[in-house]
Amino acid sequence: MGGSPRHLCRHPARNGVNVERERLLLALDFGGTKLTAGLAATTNLTKSGERRWRAHRQVLSPPGSNVESDLEIMMGLAQDLLATVEAPLSAVGVSFGGLVNAERGLVLLSHHVPGWEKMPLQEWLEERLRVPAAVDNDANVAALGEHRFGAGQGCNSLMYITVSTGVGGGWILNGRPWRGAEGMAGEIGHTVVDPDGPLCLCGKRGCVERLASGPYIAQRAREWLQAQPDRGQILRALAGGDPSIHSGQAPSVHSGQALETITAKLVAQAAAQGDDLAWEALEVAAWALGLGIGNAANLVNPERFLLGGGVTKAGERFWEVVRRTARETALPEVHFDVVPAALGDDAPLWGAVALAEDLISTE
Amino acid sequence: MGGSPRHLCRHPARNGVNVERERLLLALDFGGTKLTAGLAATTNLTKSGERRWRAHRQVLSPPGSNVESDLEIMMGLAQDLLATVEAPLSAVGVSFGGLVNAERGLVLLSHHVPGWEKMPLQEWLEERLRVPAAVDNDANVAALGEHRFGAGQGCNSLMYITVSTGVGGGWILNGRPWRGAEGMAGEIGHTVVDPDGPLCLCGKRGCVERLASGPYIAQRAREWLQAQPDRGQILRALAGGDPSIHSGQAPSVHSGQALETITAKLVAQAAAQGDDLAWEALEVAAWALGLGIGNAANLVNPERFLLGGGVTKAGERFWEVVRRTARETALPEVHFDVVPAALGDDAPLWGAVALAEDLISTE
Repeated sequence: MGGSPRHLCRHPARNGVNVERERLLLALDFGGTKLTAGLAATTNLTKSGERRWRAHRQVLSPPGSNVESDLEIMMGLAQDLLATVEAPLSAVGVSFGGLVNAERGLVLLSHHVPGWEKMPLQEWLEERLRVPAAVDNDANVAALGEHRFGAGQGCNSLMYITVSTGVGGGWILNGRPWRGAEGMAGEIGHTVVDPDGPLCLCGKRGCVERLASGPYIAQRAREWLQAQPDRGQILRALAGGDPSIHSGQAPSVHSGQALETITAKLVAQAAAQGDDLAWEALEVAAWALGLGIGNAANLVNPERFLLGGGVTKAGERFWEVVRRTARETALPEVHFDVVPAALGDDAPLWGAVALAEDLISTE
Repeated sequence: MGGSPRHLCRHPARNGVNVERERLLLALDFGGTKLTAGLAATTNLTKSGERRWRAHRQVLSPPGSNVESDLEIMMGLAQDLLATVEAPLSAVGVSFGGLVNAERGLVLLSHHVPGWEKMPLQEWLEERLRVPAAVDNDANVAALGEHRFGAGQGCNSLMYITVSTGVGGGWILNGRPWRGAEGMAGEIGHTVVDPDGPLCLCGKRGCVERLASGPYIAQRAREWLQAQPDRGQILRALAGGDPSIHSGQAPSVHSGQALETITAKLVAQAAAQGDDLAWEALEVAAWALGLGIGNAANLVNPERFLLGGGVTKAGERFWEVVRRTARETALPEVHFDVVPAALGDDAPLWGAVALAEDLISTE
């Protein structure tokens, strides 16, 4: 037992199909700010998890977009991709940034774009593309992508967690996505780890997301800089504030404006350069995330946690606190490892390929 | 969405086998203080969850017992039961109060009795009884029992939680037990809900078990009685303390000794009779349990939570706080109900029947 983590996912082997004939799979990712489409061929997906796009397109979601404009742009991307190949399409998988009823292929709510409420996206795509389609939310799909092609290969059970603008997650249990009774499983961002903590938008105090997401890390650093004029000089300088403020005076208006430019990325940079205030703001996030992971490990006992999203690029010291806190929170008999997700921003799109692949493997 | 809980488990239907020929199933429960054996016939288990023992025996575990004496007593009970029937036995299911590797049928540790470390109980029983055996820990088995025969019938997913001397739990996901990568899933008792809370035996602060288990409810009440001599007169009287202490004097030696007799049950009785201190000691437990349930709902999104164990008999006011806190902790889109377990102390033994039933259904 004790400290050294056991690595439970020992036998990487892809769960997908192995069809001899080449089949084309279309993957669509309706993200918060981007629309992405990818076309993959089963012959370009190997059992060892290697993968290659046949074709790939991405556009930024234009300001003021709605469900109709998003769908029109996405279908344009899809037609562009399909025009590059001669073989017919076999299936479509979709990652959607919002609430989804995966069983019915129904979008319930977009976090970013109006008009998506109760949109039957699976049916809509099947009618237009004349192939089977499957739709799920981005966190579940990213978990599937990491399991099939990324850092979760060979795991019977895992939790994928993205720590970015928000904190979300998805499960693979028994080698398959576990979506919960209503597709809501994986909401680690809104588990409470500090009931006396700051108030979250969700109405509770001390949620993981309130303590660990990027915007809240930046907000915490700004508040501390304003309250503690002696500290955080490296961060102030990086933010373009007045670097002459070393002497305990209140921040000038100039540096006050500069504070607005502070992001979690800048906090991580300052921490890496030795700024104590910046590190402490980051450490709170690592602690909250580690506690949430330890609690999830005690509850579900998965083999592995995979962390992705911008905040997880905050450096080795951040990871060390996440891992230590998770280890201390979990019972000694509960083993797991906490590793970086491998596919980065592509995890949802590769997960959409896996969704499509599963459709033809169960035909 | 709002307040009214949706009841997701709508279609009770037993998942078990429906064999025409009568098959005999032996169920064994190695509990903390009791050894119990039951004999059931498949013809006495109906699809609607009705059930009847063919024969049933229970003995208290004698003081100073060890693995050999436990096994000898249990085999004696089993032989007594089997002597009452003519048909041969078909399978054995076992609930064990400790750590179990269910896949290998191996007991790793008893919480109560020495010598169980690495005991291959499944193999041992199969050699002696010449039928297939299955072994799992009591929380997982109780979850299975409630799912097959109790308050979890018809649920695709549920969490069973027992709140007693400790706080443990077990999952049913996709209609099957989810034990985790190492059989450790369901340890809601050691999820942290208050990182500034009191120190638990596990080394962490503010675990659900540290705040909600019976012995800790009693300890909290005792500490508050000692610190607040003006309060808790009803509880003091119920504990056999000096009932004349109404006037703010420090407790007498007599009542100090009486405090030692305080149990969680007595705290609940005093709370029901209007003792504010007793209610507050209980309310902390209900709050911690509710927060743990809400966190588990966000993480796993099961249809239902079933609560059993002595502490859950603490009355409607206790349940109201559990349900309200769980509801406030979970996201508005996450629905579940929180209901009393139906099988009481028999849940593990009926779960052992279900384990045995599954062995013959997959023969």
